[in-house]
Amino acid sequence: MPLAVPVLPEGVDPAWLPAAAFRSLGTRRTLIRGSGPLVETVHGEVAGACARFGGRVERDPEPGAGASYDLVLEVGPGLGDEEFAYERTAGSTTVTASGQSGLLYGLFHVVRLGENAFHGERAREVHGPALPLRMLDHWDHVAVHPVMGQVERGYAGGSLFWEDGRARGGTARVRAYGRLLAACGINAVAVNNVNVHETEAHLLTDRIGEVAALADALRPYGIRTHLSVTFAAPIVLGGVDTADPLDARVREWWARATADVYSAIPDFGGYVVKADSEGQPGPFAYGRSHADGANMLAAALAEHGGTVHWRAFVYNHRQDWRDRSTDRARAAYDHFVPLDGQFADNAVLQVKHGPMDFQVREPVSPVLGAMPRTRLALEVQATQEYTGQQRHVCWLGPMWSEVLGFRPEGAARVGELADGLVAVSNVGDDPFWTGHPLAQANLYTLGRLAWQPDADPYRLLDEWIRLTFPAAAPRLVTGLQTALKGSWRTYEKYTAPLGVGFMVQPGHHYGPSVDGYEYSPWGTYHFADRDGVGVDRSAATGTGFAAQYAKPWSEMYESPDTCPDELLLFFHHMSYGHILHSGKTVIQHIYDTHFEGVAEVEEAREAWASLADLVGPARHARVTERYDEQVRSAREWRDQVNSYFFRKSGVVDSHGRRIY
Amino acid sequence: MPLAVPVLPEGVDPAWLPAAAFRSLGTRRTLIRGSGPLVETVHGEVAGACARFGGRVERDPEPGAGASYDLVLEVGPGLGDEEFAYERTAGSTTVTASGQSGLLYGLFHVVRLGENAFHGERAREVHGPALPLRMLDHWDHVAVHPVMGQVERGYAGGSLFWEDGRARGGTARVRAYGRLLAACGINAVAVNNVNVHETEAHLLTDRIGEVAALADALRPYGIRTHLSVTFAAPIVLGGVDTADPLDARVREWWARATADVYSAIPDFGGYVVKADSEGQPGPFAYGRSHADGANMLAAALAEHGGTVHWRAFVYNHRQDWRDRSTDRARAAYDHFVPLDGQFADNAVLQVKHGPMDFQVREPVSPVLGAMPRTRLALEVQATQEYTGQQRHVCWLGPMWSEVLGFRPEGAARVGELADGLVAVSNVGDDPFWTGHPLAQANLYTLGRLAWQPDADPYRLLDEWIRLTFPAAAPRLVTGLQTALKGSWRTYEKYTAPLGVGFMVQPGHHYGPSVDGYEYSPWGTYHFADRDGVGVDRSAATGTGFAAQYAKPWSEMYESPDTCPDELLLFFHHMSYGHILHSGKTVIQHIYDTHFEGVAEVEEAREAWASLADLVGPARHARVTERYDEQVRSAREWRDQVNSYFFRKSGVVDSHGRRIY
Repeated sequence: MPLAVPVLPEGVDPAWLPAAAFRSLGTRRTLIRGSGPLVETVHGEVAGACARFGGRVERDPEPGAGASYDLVLEVGPGLGDEEFAYERTAGSTTVTASGQSGLLYGLFHVVRLGENAFHGERAREVHGPALPLRMLDHWDHVAVHPVMGQVERGYAGGSLFWEDGRARGGTARVRAYGRLLAACGINAVAVNNVNVHETEAHLLTDRIGEVAALADALRPYGIRTHLSVTFAAPIVLGGVDTADPLDARVREWWARATADVYSAIPDFGGYVVKADSEGQPGPFAYGRSHADGANMLAAALAEHGGTVHWRAFVYNHRQDWRDRSTDRARAAYDHFVPLDGQFADNAVLQVKHGPMDFQVREPVSPVLGAMPRTRLALEVQATQEYTGQQRHVCWLGPMWSEVLGFRPEGAARVGELADGLVAVSNVGDDPFWTGHPLAQANLYTLGRLAWQPDADPYRLLDEWIRLTFPAAAPRLVTGLQTALKGSWRTYEKYTAPLGVGFMVQPGHHYGPSVDGYEYSPWGTYHFADRDGVGVDRSAATGTGFAAQYAKPWSEMYESPDTCPDELLLFFHHMSYGHILHSGKTVIQHIYDTHFEGVAEVEEAREAWASLADLVGPARHARVTERYDEQVRSAREWRDQVNSYFFRKSGVVDSHGRRIY
Repeated sequence: MPLAVPVLPEGVDPAWLPAAAFRSLGTRRTLIRGSGPLVETVHGEVAGACARFGGRVERDPEPGAGASYDLVLEVGPGLGDEEFAYERTAGSTTVTASGQSGLLYGLFHVVRLGENAFHGERAREVHGPALPLRMLDHWDHVAVHPVMGQVERGYAGGSLFWEDGRARGGTARVRAYGRLLAACGINAVAVNNVNVHETEAHLLTDRIGEVAALADALRPYGIRTHLSVTFAAPIVLGGVDTADPLDARVREWWARATADVYSAIPDFGGYVVKADSEGQPGPFAYGRSHADGANMLAAALAEHGGTVHWRAFVYNHRQDWRDRSTDRARAAYDHFVPLDGQFADNAVLQVKHGPMDFQVREPVSPVLGAMPRTRLALEVQATQEYTGQQRHVCWLGPMWSEVLGFRPEGAARVGELADGLVAVSNVGDDPFWTGHPLAQANLYTLGRLAWQPDADPYRLLDEWIRLTFPAAAPRLVTGLQTALKGSWRTYEKYTAPLGVGFMVQPGHHYGPSVDGYEYSPWGTYHFADRDGVGVDRSAATGTGFAAQYAKPWSEMYESPDTCPDELLLFFHHMSYGHILHSGKTVIQHIYDTHFEGVAEVEEAREAWASLADLVGPARHARVTERYDEQVRSAREWRDQVNSYFFRKSGVVDSHGRRIY
């Protein structure tokens, strides 16, 4: 039985799968050969498109029936689970897959190609994902937190998965979400926050049925469901008096609990764990290592085919700001690199892209090149915690692409060294999914980069535009490109300068507060004084963080002369008068970029205003309202940062602009 | 029937009314003459003391019964409602009062005197309160707010009045609270926060029965109950489409609602209103003045003998920090002084002691001397929002005494110009009432200063010590004096310097954040740059706030040469090198006071440690724990403030101490 395409609730945006994106497919004659649940998903997609646009779909006709088809989607031998082969000969396009999700990915490939899928000839080409783990971590809570809301660092309404204290289960909204993810290549989802509170701890045991309902809704789109668990579960849930990973009772408890999970969800993906980090429990309490902790869970998961995602985000979050010898940037490397080779095969170490915490500009984490005998997943934030919280346009494709293209030892790229790309989700129950309609581009680009890390992000952006706005007028395409392409650099310009990071309001992290974290326990300092600003992380005179890199990076970062401007204050404390490679002084760079950044946002808002006739009124109004806030906020950033450094340095702007 | 003394729940501290404080009274023979509810309260007090200590109490014996009494408490003619006459002749002490609460105050006078009440001779002296309004405003909510807790700016647990969404009514705890207040002279209480949220709005109408239950519990101690109401009540509760104070329907609605209140609480005190302030509704929306608003409520209350307390805390809380022409300090004067003479007789304008917001050091509000034709109440905070939140010892008696003794025009003191003293309460359902056991001294001193504004605060402190710790060893008396006497100055030393104010963490206001409010909309700036710090509020070159004072103050504050050091940065922006009257530079003063303040707290902690054998273990442990936090926090203040100004000024400490 073909699986019907989920019908979106009234008012919910179809994102990059509007009906019109299926026009080329839906006007053709398609044959589907093979069987299995995901084949039914594919059949439902084609049938839905044909019902709307007048084409036809047939299923496994009698051999020799002799009809001719525009498109054949078939299950055949010789390919990997997620791969598909694509070719076009003699007026017919064929997509072949061995595993079922490969066929689904092939179908969406055809959708993306549009009319191009049905013209000319194309020799057989095999497509498959470069990274087997392509995952979204939802920092969702079952219960609404009075301060954090329901989704920690969520800016798109409530949770898509949890409502009124229960799982939404197999609602059309959850199924439609799975469909969107499959269409950009995501194959895994963690359904709850890595900070596991009391209510959410129970999802592992007595509330696993609710997780199973979500898994049932996502499975037809090739997505495996994961669960964030608390390391203290044996104590909290099991009544064991320890969570020591080497204690037999603990191992037995996890083995039994995990077996029960697999009874409920046979294709369960595995666990996500934040341990010994920001107050979460972990193996340190028992004198055990992170490898001990991860391997204990890996052992429980192994026989079922599950994976443990162990986060490398471990640092001292109760640092004394007076202590200049401790450097949070060093922490992940210092904690984990000595453990290289000790992690089980089904343990994946999940490493944030930078050494700090999802800032708009950080160097690539040195951990990513330093653990060749460990499976690594690169973790990024699709949710814009530090990049405008989906009130600002900040398309992160180029940033992620830079990270994936970084060559830690001068040879292989991060996108080749890693086994996976994991993003903290930017999705909620908002009608536009992501709060800011243009933030959908981040989610789409993320999925596509996980599939092909060396893809040109600007090509992926165009892909997103063409899918989301089929048959868009050239003026709209250009307008959207203008709004999004440079938006990350623009955001960087009007916020913390030259890689120094933070300078955000404590707690919620929205808007500027230059000294907001300067005297805090969080390890996030800029050390600005009347003479200069920045953190000396050199090996010669600083914290030594620069030496955690292999050459050439360690040498490049070590000296202000060779350190790239954009990371200068991350690695060095510089005087305001220091001349950058750009030829400007540090202080003039600060002033200039902050004036430029605001001007760019003002231009983008104007450009958007001119598109009112080309997009629907709801979308236009939503984006307009957010641009107004972005302009207001960008001006606040500009004026606070410039005033702060003017008051400290006493250096006047060489262009004589207004600084308060 | 004598009213029995309320029995405190197990573990609740008796504060300044321990049983032993009644020993002198309780061993004597007392006659009580007269009738009425408060006479029954007095009788119950004496009977309770006698039951414990073996004395006797008699009531209205037959004339000529011929017995002799150590003490006669009687109702007689010729005195004001709250007054009492005291004399001792021929071995007998007599307290006479006309109004009933006078007799209660006279009884507590006898308790305070202890054995001295029963020796020697004393000519008749009449005692009465200098201020008729002696009030505590409880910023309590019925519902617990997820961020603010149940008591806004409360640091002593939950509300004493509200629990589980309902009034605690006539519980022993509430009655015991009324008794403590009567013993220090308080005669009015407002039972809910001036920020009136939806739940609390209903206390005025359908939930007035709960307020009546609280009033019933407090009435036997001479305390009238007040209610904070929302100016929008006719809309929110009454279904009227306006709250315009000149609209006849609005006036009728308030008249009817107020009549209903008095049906439930015949001696209801009146309303407390925060209008057009920090988002609360008010008359501005209708183009009406604060006098229009206050007088409308006064009219509704007048025939019932009620009073409206209208707060003068009105300012623009959405100021642009870039705008240096707006000065929050000016706001109350600018808003209210032009209305002098327009307020009804039963309207009281409630004015904060300083022009800003309960900082540890502010000049006295110029409003207090500028409205001779308006009834004024001085508002202070017993709750230590900006003075250590009852984790720090900060006895505010000397500060309040300074304010009450200030002579706005060189002649009459604030304590003579004002009709009332109102304090935001520092009490909650904590076993020690005030969180920090030593913060009880603030509440006691407050009540006694309201009774006698020109009392020596240090004498009141000794009174509190003798009552709270009857028969205390001299070492304990000295230790408590040491801990408390200089604690306000100590707190001032290690926090914001020279009257500049704020520098607290935004939101909760605990702990340092020098720039925390510097770029905020709240109008609370210090303008520190690399050359200097402070706000120019002179008439000549600044905001003109100094000119809101009469002479000699306007002239004294106008010039840095004559402005007192302690207020210098409140009135002037000064270079770090400016020499204070003390002979120190501004920057060296900052360093020195911050090191001194911490040293003083460390000494106080040591002094307290030495008293372990003299106070009960629960009290000693509680205070010890708070001293540990105070020391930690004071060091944080010292290091952040010193580092901030060192980084800005570049001036090294002349004593070479460690600055980070």
